[in-house]
Order: sequence, then C-alpha cells, then structure tokens
Amino acid sequence: MRIEILCTGDEVLSGKTINTNYSHMARRLQEVGLDVVWGTTVGDDRESLVEAFKLAGARADAVIVNGGLGPTVDDLSQEVAAEAAGVGLKLDEGWLKHIETFYAARGRVMPPNNKKQAMLPEGSELIDNPVGTACGFALTIGKAKFYFTPGVPREIRHMLEHQLIPRLLAQSGTQAVVRLKRFHSFGMGESRVDDMLKGAEDLAEGGEVKLGFQAHYPQLETKLFGRGQSMEELETRMAPIEAAIRERMGAYILSEDTDTLESVILKAMAGGTLAVAEYGTNGAVAGRMVAIDSDGKVFKRGGVGGTIRALGRALGLGEAYDRATASTAKAYAEAVADTSSASHGLAVLIAPADEGNSGEGMVQIAVARSGQDTIVRSACIVGGPDRVRNGGVEMGLDGLRRILQGLSAADPVDFERKDAT
Amino acid sequence: MRIEILCTGDEVLSGKTINTNYSHMARRLQEVGLDVVWGTTVGDDRESLVEAFKLAGARADAVIVNGGLGPTVDDLSQEVAAEAAGVGLKLDEGWLKHIETFYAARGRVMPPNNKKQAMLPEGSELIDNPVGTACGFALTIGKAKFYFTPGVPREIRHMLEHQLIPRLLAQSGTQAVVRLKRFHSFGMGESRVDDMLKGAEDLAEGGEVKLGFQAHYPQLETKLFGRGQSMEELETRMAPIEAAIRERMGAYILSEDTDTLESVILKAMAGGTLAVAEYGTNGAVAGRMVAIDSDGKVFKRGGVGGTIRALGRALGLGEAYDRATASTAKAYAEAVADTSSASHGLAVLIAPADEGNSGEGMVQIAVARSGQDTIVRSACIVGGPDRVRNGGVEMGLDGLRRILQGLSAADPVDFERKDAT
Repeated sequence: MRIEILCTGDEVLSGKTINTNYSHMARRLQEVGLDVVWGTTVGDDRESLVEAFKLAGARADAVIVNGGLGPTVDDLSQEVAAEAAGVGLKLDEGWLKHIETFYAARGRVMPPNNKKQAMLPEGSELIDNPVGTACGFALTIGKAKFYFTPGVPREIRHMLEHQLIPRLLAQSGTQAVVRLKRFHSFGMGESRVDDMLKGAEDLAEGGEVKLGFQAHYPQLETKLFGRGQSMEELETRMAPIEAAIRERMGAYILSEDTDTLESVILKAMAGGTLAVAEYGTNGAVAGRMVAIDSDGKVFKRGGVGGTIRALGRALGLGEAYDRATASTAKAYAEAVADTSSASHGLAVLIAPADEGNSGEGMVQIAVARSGQDTIVRSACIVGGPDRVRNGGVEMGLDGLRRILQGLSAADPVDFERKDAT
Repeated sequence: MRIEILCTGDEVLSGKTINTNYSHMARRLQEVGLDVVWGTTVGDDRESLVEAFKLAGARADAVIVNGGLGPTVDDLSQEVAAEAAGVGLKLDEGWLKHIETFYAARGRVMPPNNKKQAMLPEGSELIDNPVGTACGFALTIGKAKFYFTPGVPREIRHMLEHQLIPRLLAQSGTQAVVRLKRFHSFGMGESRVDDMLKGAEDLAEGGEVKLGFQAHYPQLETKLFGRGQSMEELETRMAPIEAAIRERMGAYILSEDTDTLESVILKAMAGGTLAVAEYGTNGAVAGRMVAIDSDGKVFKRGGVGGTIRALGRALGLGEAYDRATASTAKAYAEAVADTSSASHGLAVLIAPADEGNSGEGMVQIAVARSGQDTIVRSACIVGGPDRVRNGGVEMGLDGLRRILQGLSAADPVDFERKDAT
C-alpha cells in the first residue's frame, strides 16, 4: 500500500516549526509495518493545497493530511478537501456539541469562530479527537483515501495511535502480525553498536528480522522488527537475536521496550529512597526522577544550586566546597542522603573542563548508600555545552542504575575523552 | 520567484532523522526575503526521484535538492539528475583532485567509491563545498534551475550561506527587505487573540503586513511580517499595528522578539536574587531559571520535593504542612527566600484538583519579597496532567514576571476553570 504524508501550514513550510509531526508519523507507521513513500509540505494557500491533494490523490492509496483544521481563517483543510472532492461542506451537529461541551467544561463559552471546526465535507467520515476541538475526518479524493488530522502534536499523536493506525492496517489488508523489540542503551554510539551486532540478524530462522537504530543522544535505541503469522512464532524467531544483543551489549543496555532509565531505577530502588543534589544540570536529574515517582514514595527531594557554594549551604555544609570536584560530589551525595533520611543520595555536578571553554565538561557523580561506601565516577564529556549537560545527567542516572543493579559504574562511554582526568 | 525544496533519503523519509535541514533552509531563505512554496520528501528510490524532479521542474523557478550526493550505491542524485535532464555523466577532474587532496590531508587514501562524487551531469555548474567531499552542482531540469546539495547538516548550511543564497538572490532579482516582529504571551489562546486583534492589520499604510500565530502551549507567539524597500519604511509601516497589539494584549505580553520569559525575569530582578521551592512541577521552575542564569548571580538555589512534607523539611519547616494550599505556598516562598538569603522566594505547588483525577490541577503560587507582602495566586488549570504541569510552571514564572514589573498577577488565563476555588 502506497502511503503519503501531506503537511500543511505556513509555519512548517517556512521552517519556523521543525516538522516533528512528520517524523513521528513516518516512524510509527514503519514500526507497524507501513511504509511512507512520499512527503509533501505546502503552506496555508488554497492553490497549493488543491494541487497537492490532486497529485497525492492520483498517486497514493492513503494520504495523511496534517494541519489546517484550526478555527482561524488561514486553516483551509476542510474547505479545500471539499473542493478537491467536488462536494460541499456540512455542519456536523454532534461535533459542534462536542466543542461546546469542551469549552463549557472549562467554564467558557465557545468563541463563534470555533464553529468552523465542525464543518466537514459531505460524505466524509468523522475521526474522533478526544483531546482537542479539531476532529479528524476521512474522505476519498481521486483514488486515495485521505485522512485529515490536526497539527497540534499531542492531538495528532493520539489520533495516529488510536484512529489512523487501525484504519490503515485494515486498509492495507495485511493480516500479518508485527513485532517490535526495543533495547535502550547509554554509552555507545550507533556505528559501534552496528559493528558489534554484525551478523546478529542472521540468527533468525524462518523469516526476516530487520535490525535498526535510532540515536537520540544520549541514548541509543536498537530495534528489531519482524512480521509473521503469529506473535508466538515471531517471539521464537526473534529470541536468538535478542539473546545475542543482550550478551554483546551487556551492562550498556539500561532498559527494554517501554521501560525507561527512570522506571528501571524506581524498581531497582526496591523500598529504598532517593535524594538528589545537582549543579550544572538545569535540575534535570531530580526533574526526571520526580516525574516518574509522582506519589513521592521513592524520591524524597532534590536540590539544585546556582553555584556550588549555594548548593553546599542548602545541604548544611556551609562554605566548605567551592569547586565541582569528585570529593565535592562525594560530600554532597552523603549530605543530601543524610539530611533527607534517604537510603541513597545522588550528586551530579557538571562544570566546563576548562575555564571559558564549554566544549568539554567534567562530570562528577557520587552515589551514597546507607551503610556502604560512596561510589564516585568522574568523566570528561565532549561535544559542546548541550551534549555535556545531557550526557552528564544521563551518566548520573545510569551510574545510579548500574550501582543498584550491582554492575560497574566505571565502564567507558563513547562520549568521554579517555585521556582526561 | 517560486522556490521548492526537495529532500531525499530513506532516513528522512522514514522519520528516523528529523528534517532540520529543511527547516533551516526555509527559515534562512525567508530571512533574506525568499519564500519556499513547496517541500517534497522522497527516499533513495530511482522512480520517486525522477518523478519528483519532473514535477518540481514543471512547477518551480528554483529547486534545492538536498541529499543523495554521497559515495554509496544508494546515493542517486547525480545519476537521476542526468536522467531527468536527458544528459550523460562526466568525470570532473578538478573535483576528483579535491577529494583526493581532502583524504591526503587527513593521512588517508581516497576509497575508490568516492570517485562517484566527482561524476557530474554534463552541462552542470559545479558548486564548491570546502567542508566536505560532496560538491554541489546546478542544472536546468524542465523550466527550473536545480541546485543539488549535500545532506550533511554542516555542509548544506555552509553551502546555503556562501553559494546558494547569493545565486538565488541574483536569480530572483529582488532586493526587498523583510521584517519579522514577534510578541510572546501567556494566558490567552490563539482564537481569543485572533478575535482581539481583528482589524489590526489594516492599520498599516503603504503595503501589506501579515499577522500570524504560533501556539506552543502554554505560550502563544503573535507574529507580524512585512516586506518593503527599506527597514526604516517597514518599521514605520508596522509601528501602528505593534502599538495596537501592545495595547490590546497588555500585561499578557511577556516578551518580544528573541527575549524569553526567563530573560525578562532575569533583567527585572535588577540586582535581586531568587530562590525556588516547587512541587508537582518536575523541577521545571528552577530548571528554567538556572538554565539562563549560568553564572549563578541571580538564581541561588531550588528545592523540589517528592512530597509536600519532604519539601517542608528541606526548608526547615518540619512537618507543619502536608497539603498544597495557598498558605503552604506562602510559607514555602518565605522560607526558601529566608534560608537562601535571597531577595525573592518563589513557590509553585501543583496538585490534582481532586484525589485520583489528574485532568485538572490546583496551582498555588507565592512570591515572597524582602520587606514587602507576599503575593499569593491560586488557579485551577485544565486539560490533563501535562497541560496542568506546564501551565502551572508558566503561571508561576509569569506571576513572578508580573509582580517584578508592577503588574497584577491575578489576571485570568484561558486555561483555568473560573468557578474553581
């Protein structure tokens, strides 16, 4: 089945908005075995939209149109869809009611221009959007089935999962089962892992299994994709490859499938509690842990300092420390655990490796554990300030994960300069 | 002049790589007054490439093709370009020399397949690439001038600035100046502002000014775009619209152009210092402030609690508070300012409005100021946990901005339920 994606809107066309809706949709479709073969971007311009709809309608079997369903005058999707299909627009009373209810639930009256969002081409099928006021709709133009979707990322993501993927799979007629297996790792780059896993795909018998990577620094995702007659058969076919990946990547694998570094840490805490002290991280270490531990059972508290000294004072250490060294990290991890009565204290301190040069950063990590020695790890991370900060935060959390799982926190990572101390 | 961008490559088509090359090119071109009117994405597939080249060649005056100039077999741009133009390929001896020199300078011998990068369509004009081994080239296909460019971000960015923009400006023959004016606001949705600014565009005399919006919740960006003969003329023409926007949106405007909420707060602190206590925010309040105040001159420290109690203990308040109420926020803002010796203390506490229902959240904000009354603001934010959290964080920072600027922090926002208390 030939699928195209057509993104609309001046913001995307002019490059003001980076088109992450496109990449998200294409990637998710590929993960369920559907390939996008053509992408088009046009602005909020009637003539371009008509031409793009006609071209896609002549080429494709299915077209996802993203954007242009908003309440303002430059949102043209319904109107141009109707024109391209040669039909009129008709008010969908049910959806109008939905929008009014949506506003009423927020204690507001629907502005009159939102009524436009309930005007759909005649003969189109409404596609539900429980998280917004723009409904989607499906309509045949030319030889293709068009799926019109809202441009708000949260809304299109929801609609893609719950509405479009089932419809597209049904339309494609493939009854095959697909299975996606994912491994998340920290510390090795894509080309190293690619090298390391050479030949692993051939371990599958009875059908192809595709190996792929997705680098989202600082993590790398290693993906296996198979298609077969049943989930059981697929699991059996993919098992030897999975075993090889686990063996070759070892402790660098931090989680699998939908588990995250944070969720793995939360489980590994096993009744313990955590407090965090951080500097140079934009508060991301505590931010990520508190985000997953919403009831505060594991995460006690986090402190972020504008300076090393200010952080030390907040930990009751006075002015004893003024530089982000390994011994400062050790003292801070122990102090934050102590003053919070937490079983574990994590300190992550990041500072430019050289004064005035933020291209490399020294990361100091310490994990304090009640009744056991504090473990310290230092690294020089390279690649500019953003990579240093994000890499350092990840190294801090991954170091905690390794220690909780009884693994070494000292394994080298590809993003650090080995000769630095 | 009608400009199109055609991105090639399986990585971009499948969504594995987010297409930042496209957004960078389109944005830079708009900044010099050149509009991209159509974007196409196809994979490393001969048939799709030929069709895309023919379609663009029939529609556009200029086409930038990005990607497909590499040394491997799936890099097809030169070959398909020659086919679409009906010419053969010819070795460019000069560029082959360049590639060999490039490798020699790195102490390596050119791999044989790199020779492919010096094979150009007959009649094409070579475009220099001093930072890589893939040269660009220009070639007429159909009625359009095609510019073929490398996919490596660093290389296309360099080529765009130094080679393409001068050629495209010359081809377009326009010397017009463009001006983009931006207003950032918090608290009003796009359709309300659209309504509120009705007629404002007509205040411009002597040429069109376009009004547009970009919603990135919780902020809204209101943009004015004009094109004219000189920057001075444009500023004069746009001034009455800008004045109308400032008057109608009033205190909701938090910054203009490249200023951010954080940078405005930093300036408005005017020698003061800030400490933050937060709960239910994933640490984002401190995270955003510490990110902009990298030398720690204004931001002293932030504390994030896993529970209200744990946060209170970290602030030296013992077990006195166990719920996220307005009076807790007041006490925490005062305590964090006090224990940090900061001139200002900001507390942002967010909790689900009803037990077990995270669709709505109560946000409690308090700003403590040395020698002045602490200001408290409560709101019930709607739209699900992410919007509650992001909206609450924004309301906390924007409340601080308003108080520092002597404005009311009590203005209602569109994301809150007005009947809640």
